[in-house]
Amino acid sequence: MKIAGTAYRSVWVDAEDGWSVRILDQTRLPWTVEILRLADAAQAAHAIRVMQVRGAPLIGAVAAYGVALAMRADASSDAMERDCAMLAEARPTAVNLRWAVERMLTVLRNTRVEDRAAVAYAEAAAIADEDVAQCAAIGQHGAELIADAARRNPGRPVEVLTHCNAGWLATVDWGTALAPIYTAFEQGIDVHVWVDETRPRNQGAALTAFELGGHGVAHTVIADNAGGHLMQHGKVDLVIVGTDRVTRGGDVANKIGTYLKALAAHDNAVPFWVATPSTTLDWRVRDGADIPIEERDGDEVALVTGRTAAGEIATVRVIPQASAAANPAFDVTPARLVTGLITERGRCASSEAGLLALFPEQR
Amino acid sequence: MKIAGTAYRSVWVDAEDGWSVRILDQTRLPWTVEILRLADAAQAAHAIRVMQVRGAPLIGAVAAYGVALAMRADASSDAMERDCAMLAEARPTAVNLRWAVERMLTVLRNTRVEDRAAVAYAEAAAIADEDVAQCAAIGQHGAELIADAARRNPGRPVEVLTHCNAGWLATVDWGTALAPIYTAFEQGIDVHVWVDETRPRNQGAALTAFELGGHGVAHTVIADNAGGHLMQHGKVDLVIVGTDRVTRGGDVANKIGTYLKALAAHDNAVPFWVATPSTTLDWRVRDGADIPIEERDGDEVALVTGRTAAGEIATVRVIPQASAAANPAFDVTPARLVTGLITERGRCASSEAGLLALFPEQR
Repeated sequence: MKIAGTAYRSVWVDAEDGWSVRILDQTRLPWTVEILRLADAAQAAHAIRVMQVRGAPLIGAVAAYGVALAMRADASSDAMERDCAMLAEARPTAVNLRWAVERMLTVLRNTRVEDRAAVAYAEAAAIADEDVAQCAAIGQHGAELIADAARRNPGRPVEVLTHCNAGWLATVDWGTALAPIYTAFEQGIDVHVWVDETRPRNQGAALTAFELGGHGVAHTVIADNAGGHLMQHGKVDLVIVGTDRVTRGGDVANKIGTYLKALAAHDNAVPFWVATPSTTLDWRVRDGADIPIEERDGDEVALVTGRTAAGEIATVRVIPQASAAANPAFDVTPARLVTGLITERGRCASSEAGLLALFPEQR
Repeated sequence: MKIAGTAYRSVWVDAEDGWSVRILDQTRLPWTVEILRLADAAQAAHAIRVMQVRGAPLIGAVAAYGVALAMRADASSDAMERDCAMLAEARPTAVNLRWAVERMLTVLRNTRVEDRAAVAYAEAAAIADEDVAQCAAIGQHGAELIADAARRNPGRPVEVLTHCNAGWLATVDWGTALAPIYTAFEQGIDVHVWVDETRPRNQGAALTAFELGGHGVAHTVIADNAGGHLMQHGKVDLVIVGTDRVTRGGDVANKIGTYLKALAAHDNAVPFWVATPSTTLDWRVRDGADIPIEERDGDEVALVTGRTAAGEIATVRVIPQASAAANPAFDVTPARLVTGLITERGRCASSEAGLLALFPEQR
């Protein structure tokens, strides 16, 4: 997708030197577009650890390129196992991180030492390209929903509400929840996005608004509190969110607050869609109640970072010094509130039957 | 209620000089407890205008004392009408403001010029005392609900969730939604409050947390997104919120986001109570859809104010410079989602029948 007219992916190999890895420093967004250069595996692990890159698919791709950087420096089996372990441990919970490192290792263990660097770059590129293809397919299947809404409501934009950031900055390109929006936009459909600011980390206010603005998609940031009111007044045609895990039964774990929007959508007969690559489907868990929910530091609630009028990045405390804050990071939306899932293979009901119709190999 | 062990009201007559009016500068909370001195009607109007005092009942009381200050300076009928008009126009929407000024005028127009100052102070004190009595009664009726929950769940605190600030800082003392909590606390009931931060103006994070902390009530601030998750996990025994207007049919207008919490409470069988003095009941409107909703400046979403680590108050922008923000300030919770109303006359169903049983004079 584009930033001010220039097309980007969220991770790429430098075109000039042909080997170093480039990322956008997402901790600086939306204020500064700074491209970082990763020259070794330790730098790749650091970028993941301090969340210069975030979003499960993107973390996986950066880790894969981190393995390639490691092979370039020292392709011996000892170094390979050591560097891969370091990369896999850069963050504790992202499934794609371990999956990507494991996939790299499986290929490289069967590759001669002298070929490992080239094979690793090729495999990392394949991981990135597959992610792009998967997200593009989600975009196609989801854009049909937006096109339908456009046909039903000629003469005005289709109003889509989204929560958190499941855009191209969270993947390699296109995104998951935002892929249908970008695809519809590219198809010339008039679309406007209500962007939940997504407290406490403000990924909507900072990243989704930045992405959409950079690509030229009309959008308006709202407090997380506002979505229900907008739905009551017919100002939302559909909701599309991403997900961190979908159970076999169709329950959806996603950023805290998603459940409240699903309730409001249900109460107002607004379709509530969840964009999910198949890699996010957890076939082993049936009931959303069995998904562990990460409790994060209360300081994410207590402290807010932004830019002062003078242009400086500053952090302010918004609760009394003596008050505690709690910070559950995700919630689970029960399948009954989900209109359907948008996967790379198409759309389906958020239920075991719906999922198995698209993924019969999981029967 | 107390701040660090000392009992306060939110407006009072200075004990030393016997005539100047004292308020807490609520724009400085929670960081600085600064007591302001209002010496004339213009200062009272200014305090209302710049929201050094806010909350409909408190605005009414401060305006009433503003009239008393005006009478002390110049009790002539011309000056009285002029100063009262100025006070009534200090904020555009608060019903209590006009009501309080009108009540003062009705009394003063029938009072000899030389008696007006003394009568005005007495009437302002009556308005303040009546508000305190009304809130105290709401506290008694609401505390029964908390006591019931305590009996059902021995050995652990009663968990109450509230949204926005409907505490003593919004009234003269006790508050509306917080009155039952303070009353239960005074009765020795173990109570813990989940405080919604209440974006975009953060009245929960700033004022409710400050109030509860100052009085010694256990509380934890949460992002507005978190309440549904807490209810799903049995961590909320009841919700109590305030309201800006209750219709004859029992629909409830309150701070944006209240509707989402009501949906979650309903979905999880958590009682959802609305504390409302009878002055907030609007007998002329039946359907909540007919309540006009104030659209406030998007900068309230875009800009966040708090305290830096260095102790300075700073404002930071949290959305990209080029992104727009929308800011509907209130939403309407349909009566079907409200367990009941807590009024100064007792509790009732949030319906016309329920309301008329408590207020038969409105038949």
